[in-house]
Amino acid sequence: MPPQLRRSEKSLRTTDSPITAYVQKALENPALVSFAAGLVDEDTFPAADVAAVVAEIMADPRASRAALQYGSTQGDPKLRKLVLDHVCAADGVSPAELSLTPADVCITTGSQQLLYILGEVLFDPGDIVIAEAPSYFVYHSLLQSHGARVLTVPMDEDGMRTDALEALLEDLKRSGDLGRVKLIYTVDYFQNPTGLTLSAGRRPKLVELAKRYSTDHRILVLEDAAYRELRYEGPDLPSVKRSDPTNEYVVYTSTFSKPCAPGLKTGYAIMPPDVMAAVLHLKGSHDFGSGNLAQHVAARLMESGAYARHVAKLQAMYRAKRDVMLAALEKEFADVPAASWTVPVGGLYVWLTLDGVDTGPRGPLVAAALDAGVMYVPGEFGHVTDASGDLPRSHCRMCFGTASPDMIREGVARFRRAVGAVLPRETRRLAAAR
Amino acid sequence: MPPQLRRSEKSLRTTDSPITAYVQKALENPALVSFAAGLVDEDTFPAADVAAVVAEIMADPRASRAALQYGSTQGDPKLRKLVLDHVCAADGVSPAELSLTPADVCITTGSQQLLYILGEVLFDPGDIVIAEAPSYFVYHSLLQSHGARVLTVPMDEDGMRTDALEALLEDLKRSGDLGRVKLIYTVDYFQNPTGLTLSAGRRPKLVELAKRYSTDHRILVLEDAAYRELRYEGPDLPSVKRSDPTNEYVVYTSTFSKPCAPGLKTGYAIMPPDVMAAVLHLKGSHDFGSGNLAQHVAARLMESGAYARHVAKLQAMYRAKRDVMLAALEKEFADVPAASWTVPVGGLYVWLTLDGVDTGPRGPLVAAALDAGVMYVPGEFGHVTDASGDLPRSHCRMCFGTASPDMIREGVARFRRAVGAVLPRETRRLAAAR
Repeated sequence: MPPQLRRSEKSLRTTDSPITAYVQKALENPALVSFAAGLVDEDTFPAADVAAVVAEIMADPRASRAALQYGSTQGDPKLRKLVLDHVCAADGVSPAELSLTPADVCITTGSQQLLYILGEVLFDPGDIVIAEAPSYFVYHSLLQSHGARVLTVPMDEDGMRTDALEALLEDLKRSGDLGRVKLIYTVDYFQNPTGLTLSAGRRPKLVELAKRYSTDHRILVLEDAAYRELRYEGPDLPSVKRSDPTNEYVVYTSTFSKPCAPGLKTGYAIMPPDVMAAVLHLKGSHDFGSGNLAQHVAARLMESGAYARHVAKLQAMYRAKRDVMLAALEKEFADVPAASWTVPVGGLYVWLTLDGVDTGPRGPLVAAALDAGVMYVPGEFGHVTDASGDLPRSHCRMCFGTASPDMIREGVARFRRAVGAVLPRETRRLAAAR
Repeated sequence: MPPQLRRSEKSLRTTDSPITAYVQKALENPALVSFAAGLVDEDTFPAADVAAVVAEIMADPRASRAALQYGSTQGDPKLRKLVLDHVCAADGVSPAELSLTPADVCITTGSQQLLYILGEVLFDPGDIVIAEAPSYFVYHSLLQSHGARVLTVPMDEDGMRTDALEALLEDLKRSGDLGRVKLIYTVDYFQNPTGLTLSAGRRPKLVELAKRYSTDHRILVLEDAAYRELRYEGPDLPSVKRSDPTNEYVVYTSTFSKPCAPGLKTGYAIMPPDVMAAVLHLKGSHDFGSGNLAQHVAARLMESGAYARHVAKLQAMYRAKRDVMLAALEKEFADVPAASWTVPVGGLYVWLTLDGVDTGPRGPLVAAALDAGVMYVPGEFGHVTDASGDLPRSHCRMCFGTASPDMIREGVARFRRAVGAVLPRETRRLAAAR
């Protein structure tokens, strides 16, 4: 045995994301119906479009040279302009109305890289992030790497409860901890994991609160809009960024992974100039620019209209899958009063509650579900332990993105059998505990 | 003005790489002959090969699904096997002889990302990295982010002086600082910035020293082999990794950027299992996997033989450019005894010394060169200030990668004029100082 490594404090804080094992299981067992991994439907990939734009780029000496050369740390200027115009069009404003130019846009290796680097820019160990409860699992792992503390705000049908956020900020002010609050994190469209959406009324309120409590230093809002394009009904809502006309408080991030193809691994973010400068300095050390070829592919897909057509196709396909999952849940769980679930108007997730059942990784349902041939993500991964050591343990994240409609029906039936095998025992245990 | 951000200590330590401004200038001024940026020749990009393999992938439903879906954090298994076989073949051994399998390979966003993440794994502020003097500029910036200290070992024609390394380690042992030494960093093939190569005899010695001084914890060797494929004469040398048959001490990293296309932004690294686990945990937080499409493209280029053909083409092209630069230097600087330069057998750089001339960013030569229409990188960026505050300031890194042979001749002539404008004044100043 060689002598031990002496790893950094950051490395010692960093553990594997609990979700990794689940994704791995899903990839290795094609017979399993996986509602676990947030992968996207492989039948939807725009292979022909990608082939066409790559052929176009490579046939044009100037374009191929640009795409195969190093890019800049900030990313391809054309793609930055395209995504800025795209986001502003969705918000019904011009970039100028939000004090934005393409210099305020950065292209990243998926939106995940922005989440990571923004964390590096802001957090020293012990700093505070306020997030929805529950929130995006992988973001929790990342915050653990950075040594940041997560404080949470409950959600209701309208997303993060801004009244509770205000109360929390007021508490932190009273306790003298406001100086450690650096960021408010929201997945505001069809949230991962709950499928819930922040209502129009609460969006300006979020910015207003960040501003009001920025007494000691600036508190930023990180708007993770990864699922925004995947809306299946109703009109789009203005972004939180829309309520930050001076480009000072909100970092908006999104990605081509969900609405186009994860293999491009291309995300983007819009942010205030001083945040941008700090992000770019770190990104320069990380990689001095994300994959340039993928950026040129993404830009051409947007320019040609292929991207918009593709999003429309995805919306139709995922809408149908969502409907199948909701109908299957209605059918299979009509006789289970302990079960309830969210009805998302977009995204890839239904959040299912099973009162009295331990859905966690060491609980009985995970094993019963695997026996029945179905996987979900335990809801507790999205939660953080509260001051009293409690962790909500009776939720499941059900992703309808990857399975076919038939397999969704089959998977929900299998899941129902697993719940059936577990529920009476759990109920008995609960009754005994009372 | 909004309230100030309160940035992390890491962010406050992170500044822009000094090289960024130079790359930017080169990109903005096509009339300038740039020997500055380490960009690669755009006429060499394998556009037709990339178009062909992307068409192949996209025409095959299974292949296109795999390439456009999320990959794993560690990277495409096929590409990992291909690069492992490739490196071992270059070293004339089987993977098993070095205790290696594809599980010991990680695909990264260029080799830069590996440099960054390995730094995160190892360094707390104040930890020590031992590097060649001079060394890779961008790596210095990255170490500054991590708060690591750089101690240096001089080089000669055979690369890093292992006798000086041994003396430094012995000093550190005596002073009680050996516990802070985490890593020995070497760019061992046609080094950036000097063009020098670590000799065959010193390679096992490097591993032997890391091992011998790993008394308190394991000291790793980071072998940055980014330029290895770009050899223009003589036989390939075995890697430093070749001297680590138990896969315990050496992390080997390389990239497709230099020998193929930077736009793929795909690098790879081979490392001991415990280092791999720690790197993957962090990479999971960074991006849970580099661009998957680019990895599939790289794998097909290797499989089809296009990669090997392309490397052979690059070798011929860059060999010719190197010869042009060396001939131009011989011709233009025959009458300048203050000038001397390295004769690299590969890579992209000649390291030029101008005794008595301040080549630094605030010195007279940078301005004179820009006036004459040529750019180089001040050698001081590759150095760190020593204990007495001194910094070597009379070197220039001359990259022959981007300019055409004619422009190389023209650039060297312009550079000679700039030196002529500066040298007498400098010489006078030196004479006065004596």
